[in-house]
Order: sequence, then C-alpha cells, then structure tokens
Amino acid sequence: MRKWMGTLLCAMGALSLVMGMSYTSASTNVSSYAEDRAQIEDLQARYMFALDFRDIDTYLSTFTKDGIVDIVGMKWQGHEEIREMLKSMSQNAPEGKEKPAAKEEQKLYPATGRHNITNIVLKIDGDKATGRAYWFSYGNNNPDRKAVLSSYGHYEDEMVKVDGQWLFNKRVIYNEQVAEWIGPTENPCW
Amino acid sequence: MRKWMGTLLCAMGALSLVMGMSYTSASTNVSSYAEDRAQIEDLQARYMFALDFRDIDTYLSTFTKDGIVDIVGMKWQGHEEIREMLKSMSQNAPEGKEKPAAKEEQKLYPATGRHNITNIVLKIDGDKATGRAYWFSYGNNNPDRKAVLSSYGHYEDEMVKVDGQWLFNKRVIYNEQVAEWIGPTENPCW
Amino acid sequence: MRKWMGTLLCAMGALSLVMGMSYTSASTNVSSYAEDRAQIEDLQARYMFALDFRDIDTYLSTFTKDGIVDIVGMKWQGHEEIREMLKSMSQNAPEGKEKPAAKEEQKLYPATGRHNITNIVLKIDGDKATGRAYWFSYGNNNPDRKAVLSSYGHYEDEMVKVDGQWLFNKRVIYNEQVAEWIGPTENPCW
Repeated sequence: MRKWMGTLLCAMGALSLVMGMSYTSASTNVSSYAEDRAQIEDLQARYMFALDFRDIDTYLSTFTKDGIVDIVGMKWQGHEEIREMLKSMSQNAPEGKEKPAAKEEQKLYPATGRHNITNIVLKIDGDKATGRAYWFSYGNNNPDRKAVLSSYGHYEDEMVKVDGQWLFNKRVIYNEQVAEWIGPTENPCW
Repeated sequence: MRKWMGTLLCAMGALSLVMGMSYTSASTNVSSYAEDRAQIEDLQARYMFALDFRDIDTYLSTFTKDGIVDIVGMKWQGHEEIREMLKSMSQNAPEGKEKPAAKEEQKLYPATGRHNITNIVLKIDGDKATGRAYWFSYGNNNPDRKAVLSSYGHYEDEMVKVDGQWLFNKRVIYNEQVAEWIGPTENPCW
Repeated sequence: MRKWMGTLLCAMGALSLVMGMSYTSASTNVSSYAEDRAQIEDLQARYMFALDFRDIDTYLSTFTKDGIVDIVGMKWQGHEEIREMLKSMSQNAPEGKEKPAAKEEQKLYPATGRHNITNIVLKIDGDKATGRAYWFSYGNNNPDRKAVLSSYGHYEDEMVKVDGQWLFNKRVIYNEQVAEWIGPTENPCW
C-alpha cells in the first residue's frame, strides 16, 4: 500500500506542479499585457506631474539609476546628470512659475505649464517594454492667464521592470517646435 | 487503509484549499490593479461625455449617493445638490449650446465644448482609490466654429467600489484660468 | 484498494477539472475587461500614429478586411476603398507635409499634424466591443511652426477580436469644425 501511496502522492505533487504552472503561465500570458500596461501608464502620468510641478526627486524616481534622457542629440545619463539638467531647465523655463509676465500686466497668480501624454503604444516583452506616445503642452504665461497650446512632439521610450516596478531606461524626446528636435517622417511606431 | 485514505483526502482538500487561495490572492495581487484601473478609466471617460453632452442623469450615475463635487471652496454633496449645480451651470455655460454667437455672425450649427482627461495617476487599495489627473477643454463658440483651447487644470479624486462598480466619492476640481481655483504649487501626486 | 485508488484518482481528476475551470472562468470574468481594454487602447494609439505619419499599410492593418470608415454620410468599406481614400486625403491634406507654407515664409522643416485620442469609453462583450472617444488635432502648418489646435470631434467605434487581435470593424468620425460632420446633441455614450 505504501508503494501505491507513494505513487499517489507523487501524482498529487505532479498535479500540483502542473496546476501551479498552468496557473502561472496563464496569468502571465493572459493578464500580463494589461497589468504591465496599467503600471506603465501610471508611470507615464506620474512623470508628467513631476515634470510640471518641478518635483525633481519624483521625476528621477521614474528612471533607472543609469537611465537616459535624450533630447535628440543631447543626452543626460544617470540621476545626477538628469538632476542638473532639470535644475537648469527650471531656471530657464519659458513658461515656468519663475518668470511670470511683467508685474503690472499680470493677474495675481503665477503662470503654469502642463505636459500631457496621449496615444500610448506599448510592446512588452517580459521585463522590457518599448513605447511610443504623443506629448503636447499648454500654459498660461500671458497677462490674462489664458490657456494657450505651446508645443508638441512624441516620445520613444525604453522601459524595464526592476524589482516589480516599471521604470524608464531611456526616453527620447522629439519636439516639433524646434528645428533641431523634430521627429522622423517615417512612422516611428508599428 | 481507510485512515491513510482519510489522510490523503485531507491532504488533497488542503492542497485544493491552498491552490484555490493562491489563485485568488494571485488574481487579486497580480491582476487587480489593471482591472480596477481599466474600470476607473472608463468611469473617468464616461464622466466627460456626460458633462459635455449635458446628460445630468449619467453624470450623477458616476458618483456615490453622497458623493461630493468640490470646486475649491464650493461644495455640492449628494445627487440632488449636484443636479441643481449642473442645471445652473448649464444655463450660464459660456460655451454651451444654449448661448451661441449672434445669429448673423454664426455658422448654422450650435457651438460645442469638450473636456478631456489625461495623465491619470491611480493608487488603489482594495475598494478605495485615490486619483490625480489633468483636464483641459476646448470649444468652438466663435463665429467661425474654430477649435480654441479654453481652460485647464487638474483633478484630485477619491473613488470607491460599490457593488463591484467604481464611483466617484469626491472630485476636487482645480482650474488654472480662475484665480480662486488654481491648484497647489507642490506636486499633488506621488 | 484499487477501487479506492480509482475513486481517489477520479476525485483528483474532478478536482483538477474544477480548479482548472474555476481558474479559466475567473480569468475570463475577472481580468478580461482590463486585458481587452489594454489591447484596444493600443490599437487606438497605433491608428493615430499610422494616420499622422501617412503609413497607409499600418493604418489598414487596424481594420478588418471588410472594415468601414464612415465620415458621416461618406463611407469606405474594405482595405482597397480605404486605401484610395487615404491616398486622396494625403494629397489634399490641409496640414500635410506635402503642402508647406510658401518657401520664403517658412522655417526649414516641414509642418506636421497630429491627432490625439482621449476619454476612451469601452463596452466589451466577448469578441465584440463598442467604443466612444474624443479626438482632437493640432499642427504647425504656419510660417513659425507654432503649435495650433486645428479640429476636434468624437469617434463611434465597433471593434471585433479576430484570431486574438482586436481590430476596427467600423469607425464613424464626427468633426465639430465642418457643418456636415458634427455629432449628435444627445450623449452618444452610456
């Protein structure tokens, strides 16, 4: 009988293994695109808030330690280089809160600028993802605090999942308002 | 032998229980963010259609019974208060279909205004969710029915899942075109 | 004992079946909305890239073989008809790269136009989906390559899942800048 029992326990172990595997793989195959995409969409949105509200630490937290920001020819790699770039961008920001219109002309509150992401296309392969998306920005850095479209372009992203969390590994930024930063004429997507 | 069988059946029951639990918890842990986020994104989009097409009943259906609309200092709680607010907003809407440009100046069709949501950030904890997102609006309430950006701001939302359906429990609306309604300068996100 | 073993193995088979089934149905009921929505969002975004970058083959690949593009009264059905429509649209495009501003006035790079999708509402029933969404476009077809909002409207979509891939079966396009193409005044959503 013990021999039979051994066989049975063995079968149960195998069953358990098979079912565990089928569960895991089903979970990976069936649900993972949605799960990964949901987390990446959240990452993309948090990036925008951090950018517009000049929250440098949160902005950096969306990148891997050796992540790259690439504005067509200009590259910043790693948190320290990106931090310096953000600081200087902040000081020169044309639509930042730091440089409002002349005091006599402006309303009593500071101007704001906002970047938006749309049309997110994602190809996900395990712990790596490739992304394409549009961005555009508007702001109210004018005496009436009127909403005005300011610029647009697209992103070409590489993302990786580190310790269960999606991060940017490389973000290339194209901008259709600056001759040197415009995107390719070929569809960058698939 | 029966004793052994009892032990075996018991083990199988335990195995079944463990695997059932691991399935359930995996489903909850692994897939629920995507599932909840998908339903909340749908809610956010349906809210916008209802708002722009003056569909008050559908707008109300996106809120819990004691849900709150908060425009920085002004609050409406519960479906009846919100309904009254929407009715009066509709009558005074600067870009509503009710007040087109002077007849001799306008094209033959009524103006429209549209609100859009982008950059949705969501933190989900069981049946509760906290959201941040950007909104902006455009319209064509001018003689040429030309598309013009009209305003922008951000949302700070509290949502709850009631009977399997996500609803707004509180929506705070910031608007960068009105001095009294502008948002905080600190990143409202995480 | 063999009889007992048979019963046990039979019970294990049944257990396996039940757990397998409960897994599958849970996966279908609990996670499918997110999974289908994620794939449809990706489809919607790839459509936009293909449209703006004049990538006709990729644009066609987002439609079923007998898919329909319907611009309120004008209809194109099937890849060949849609291909011809896209070709002629491309030649007459007011904001296309083919017709830049006069040479002496323009910057040295061609103008671009971009369509964005927001507020995606989706009702999914098995292999069929019904969608509503907003679209708007901006471009820089002016001497300064300044970003300007150009038009907006909404989509009413029917989608089907063919061989595991979501495709447009019918896309109806409303446009609030053209009298003949404006949408209904009733909320087209739910």
